[in-house]
Amino acid sequence: MTVSEIPDSHPRRASLISRQKMVDASRRGLLAESAMIAHGRGEAYDYLLGEETSESAALAIREAAARLLRASRPVISMNGNSTILAGSAAIKIASIIGCPVEVNIYYRTDERIRGLVEELESLKERLCTGESDETKSAIMGVEILGIEADGRIDGLEGPRSICCARGIQSADVILVPLEDGDRCEALISLGKQVIAIDLNPLSRTARTATVTVVDEVSRALGRLVEELPGNPLPTDWDNDGALREALGVMSDASLRI
Amino acid sequence: MTVSEIPDSHPRRASLISRQKMVDASRRGLLAESAMIAHGRGEAYDYLLGEETSESAALAIREAAARLLRASRPVISMNGNSTILAGSAAIKIASIIGCPVEVNIYYRTDERIRGLVEELESLKERLCTGESDETKSAIMGVEILGIEADGRIDGLEGPRSICCARGIQSADVILVPLEDGDRCEALISLGKQVIAIDLNPLSRTARTATVTVVDEVSRALGRLVEELPGNPLPTDWDNDGALREALGVMSDASLRI
Repeated sequence: MTVSEIPDSHPRRASLISRQKMVDASRRGLLAESAMIAHGRGEAYDYLLGEETSESAALAIREAAARLLRASRPVISMNGNSTILAGSAAIKIASIIGCPVEVNIYYRTDERIRGLVEELESLKERLCTGESDETKSAIMGVEILGIEADGRIDGLEGPRSICCARGIQSADVILVPLEDGDRCEALISLGKQVIAIDLNPLSRTARTATVTVVDEVSRALGRLVEELPGNPLPTDWDNDGALREALGVMSDASLRI
Repeated sequence: MTVSEIPDSHPRRASLISRQKMVDASRRGLLAESAMIAHGRGEAYDYLLGEETSESAALAIREAAARLLRASRPVISMNGNSTILAGSAAIKIASIIGCPVEVNIYYRTDERIRGLVEELESLKERLCTGESDETKSAIMGVEILGIEADGRIDGLEGPRSICCARGIQSADVILVPLEDGDRCEALISLGKQVIAIDLNPLSRTARTATVTVVDEVSRALGRLVEELPGNPLPTDWDNDGALREALGVMSDASLRI
C-alpha cells in the first residue's frame, strides 16, 4: 500500500497515512526496531481518544504555545517517530518562535541521526514553496542540531545522556514529542520545563512533564502552529488534572459500545 | 538486547520478553510489516489492564474452555503474532481437546505460512521434552494446517477468504487470537462460534465474537490450558457485559495517577 492508495473517504485515513509513513521510513532505515511498536502503542491510545484532539489536550497545546513563546532558550527535541509524523509542523513552530530543532534519539546511531537531520533539512526546503520571502527566511533559518554530540544531560548515563550544548543542554523549555521517562525526569530535575506530547496519560513522561499534551503528535504540533499567532498567556497549569481528563476521555470510549 | 539480558527483577519483564520475541521473529521474516504496530497496540491496551488477567477475562477464558471442549469440530486459528507469542500454549490446547491448529494470516504469503507452520512443528518437538508417552503422542498428533489453501470463507473476497477445508471452513467453534474484524464477522454470519482473544475491547472483532477474551494472548492461552482439565460448563454468555467490564478495568487505570 502507498499513501495515495488510501481512499479519501476512509474513516481512519489520517491514522492509515501515519502508519504508512512509518512503514516507509522504517524501510529507509530512519527508525529503530522498536519504533513501530511505539507507533502501535500510540495508535491504540489514539483509538481510545476517538482519534481527535480533546478539549483538555487543546488547552494543554495552548499552554505549550504560551510557555514556548515566553522561553529564553526554547528547543524542540525530535526523535525518529516524531520527525516522520510531524517534522514539518516542528519546523514551522521553530520558525515562528525562533528556536533550534534537535534530533535526539533513544537508540543513538550516527547513521540514523544523520538521516533524520537530512530529512528535516529537506522538509525545510519543501515548506518554503509558495511562502513569502520573510517566511522562507525564517524557515531556512531554523537550525537542525543533533550531529554534534557536545552536550550532556546531567543525571543520565550512557548514550542517552548525549545532547547538543546549544540545544537541550542550555534550554529552559523543551518541547518533546514521545519522550523517554528517564530523560524526562532528568530534564525536570535540572530545573527545565518539559512540554511532552504523549498519548499514554499514565506514562512516566506524561506524569513527570511540566505540561503534557495527550494527543497524537501530528495533530498536536499542527494545532500548536495555529495557536502561536494568538500569543496565549501561560496559566497556573494543573498537569495531574489534565491527565485525569485525558483518561476520562479514554474511559468514555466505553459509551461507544 | 536478547531475552536473556532482561533482568529477572524487571517489573515489566513479561512484556519486554514478548517484545523481544517479536523483534527476533520479524528479523527472521515470520511477520508482516504491520505486525510490530499491532503488537504495540496490544502493549498499550495491556498497560491499561495492568498487564494481568482481569477477573472478567478469567471468566471469558473459562467460557472459552467450556465451549471448545463441547465443540464438534473445534480449530485454533493462529497468525504470525500469536504463533510467536503463544504458539506453545496453542499446541497444548489442541493436544488436550484434540483439534487442528491452522495458520491463517492476513497478509498471506506462501513463505510466511510455511515459516509459521515450521515454527509450530518445531514447538511440538520442544514441548515433548520430559512428557509421558501419552502426552507426547497427543502433542505430536496435533495437525498443523495452513499450507493447503483448499477452503474458502464465504462472504469474504480475495486472499483473506482463503482457509483450510478441514480447518476453519468446516469448524463449528474457532479460537482466534488477534483476529481481523471482517473475517470475524464473516465467520459469525456462517453460524460458527468465534472465541476471540483481543486486547482492544472496542475492536470490531471484540464486539462481533461470541466470546471475547480481553487479555494478552500468551497469558490467555496459558490460562486456557489450565482451565481445560476442570471441564467447566458453558453459560449463557453476555459478551457485551464482558466488554464493558474490560473497559471498566482500563478506566480504573486512572486511579493509578
